[in-house]
Amino acid sequence: MSADEATVAEGPLALVCGGGSLPLAVADHVLARGRRVLLFPVRGAAKPEDYAGREHTWVHLGQFGTLARVARPLGCTEIVLIGGLTRPSLWGLRPDLLTLKILPRIAKAFLGGDNHLLSNIAKLVEEQGFRLRGAHEVAPEILAPHGSLGRLVPDAEDLANVGLGLDYLASAGRFDIGQAAVVAGRHIVAVEAAEGTDGMLARVATLRATGRIRAPRGVLVKAPKPQQDRRFDLPSIGPTTVAAAAKAGLSGIVVIAGETVVAEPDALREAADRAGLFVFGASGPAA
Amino acid sequence: MSADEATVAEGPLALVCGGGSLPLAVADHVLARGRRVLLFPVRGAAKPEDYAGREHTWVHLGQFGTLARVARPLGCTEIVLIGGLTRPSLWGLRPDLLTLKILPRIAKAFLGGDNHLLSNIAKLVEEQGFRLRGAHEVAPEILAPHGSLGRLVPDAEDLANVGLGLDYLASAGRFDIGQAAVVAGRHIVAVEAAEGTDGMLARVATLRATGRIRAPRGVLVKAPKPQQDRRFDLPSIGPTTVAAAAKAGLSGIVVIAGETVVAEPDALREAADRAGLFVFGASGPAA
Repeated sequence: MSADEATVAEGPLALVCGGGSLPLAVADHVLARGRRVLLFPVRGAAKPEDYAGREHTWVHLGQFGTLARVARPLGCTEIVLIGGLTRPSLWGLRPDLLTLKILPRIAKAFLGGDNHLLSNIAKLVEEQGFRLRGAHEVAPEILAPHGSLGRLVPDAEDLANVGLGLDYLASAGRFDIGQAAVVAGRHIVAVEAAEGTDGMLARVATLRATGRIRAPRGVLVKAPKPQQDRRFDLPSIGPTTVAAAAKAGLSGIVVIAGETVVAEPDALREAADRAGLFVFGASGPAA
Repeated sequence: MSADEATVAEGPLALVCGGGSLPLAVADHVLARGRRVLLFPVRGAAKPEDYAGREHTWVHLGQFGTLARVARPLGCTEIVLIGGLTRPSLWGLRPDLLTLKILPRIAKAFLGGDNHLLSNIAKLVEEQGFRLRGAHEVAPEILAPHGSLGRLVPDAEDLANVGLGLDYLASAGRFDIGQAAVVAGRHIVAVEAAEGTDGMLARVATLRATGRIRAPRGVLVKAPKPQQDRRFDLPSIGPTTVAAAAKAGLSGIVVIAGETVVAEPDALREAADRAGLFVFGASGPAA
């Protein structure tokens, strides 16, 4: 934990919750540290039944005023945006969560790529006297650990593929494109850009079915972009990533330990073991 | 023309012809230079009606013996493989043309990426006393010229996108992946790997239709990989590339002049003008 993190305001934390189980996992980790959490599930993204048993305030992401009116009097100065990671498809996720329609200032930045978009969201929130923090900063438990998540481990051939994939991602990172690639037979067969990881994995499944990818097995490699704002744009995996990787005929998934969010780790582990895939947290490049 | 090219044997040229009009265009350019051409259309790839009026010998690509028996007594020592570029889809093209099933030696190399595959094909042919040459070496007329192929030219925004795309391709080239990327709003939105250019453009069309790409317009940028064997694996474009780029909502296509094959340049020019797209041959990096 950095000096910066150690000196955060310890008022309640406002958690803007998208879909999936990750927001509540983050809430529970923060609560376990003795900090109060204000839940703001996002209409259309979060499921009402998930929040039925907890105090919460529904918001549209554009209704930043609602959040501010509830949170400010309670001494809250920090906001975390989290969720949506376990949806069946990532397509269309960010536009929902980040309310492009409602914040016209953001629309222009959107054309410049994700990093600009998110930085502008952060600026907007901070102009209102709040600080935008990363979910992994307030709940480091959600990050991938070192080593295997599950029973299986990569073999030598897998590691050769992984090495190539990590080299590629490090080299391509400065172009602000995808955080993932698929390597099979020591050849990069798919690179993620705007389609998202699930879209890329679906493509690999198709290319394999049509004989355009003939190398057996292969690995999905994910790593954060070097210039990525890790507060709200870490790579993430979940049980659906494992399912998509299995459909793509891969032998496993490698992520960077401590720099990747794992949604539903228990379900992911179980899915990986059942499908015969490894999910491995590798050390990142020396900082 | 290099010294090497100037000293080639001037016996007849064996042209192994895949699909599309490019093989016959190459044949005509070589004939116009006064060199005899032996046509070997490939069953399942070339169309019989295209060869009806010309002397030719049908081959399966695995039947290298047939070619050798016809060509050797005529003093032929050089072979060019060309074709298939104007098919509706590039998927599955190379496995047809390069007879992976028939040449088991090749199968292993296939797992290592295109460059290894093609180098092995070349070795195999050369062991038989023939020299494999690039279509553009015997018919440089098929290469993209400098400047616009058609009426339109890129504007300043297009050129900014192009610059980013060329930077990316130069950086990613050492990974032996795709030769193409799509850049929109100064953001790389798609990168080609095993799916081929047409597959990537179809994806961009879908991502745009589903709102996952919101930047207007954009460009397709193609460039050869640095280590590419230019004898038989130059990037190529044709009228179908223009059609796919138009469907993807792009404003144009940029290729490297002198290092890109243009199939059916007249039809391509007409398709580009009709669709309102530019097709531009840019100078490559200084050698």
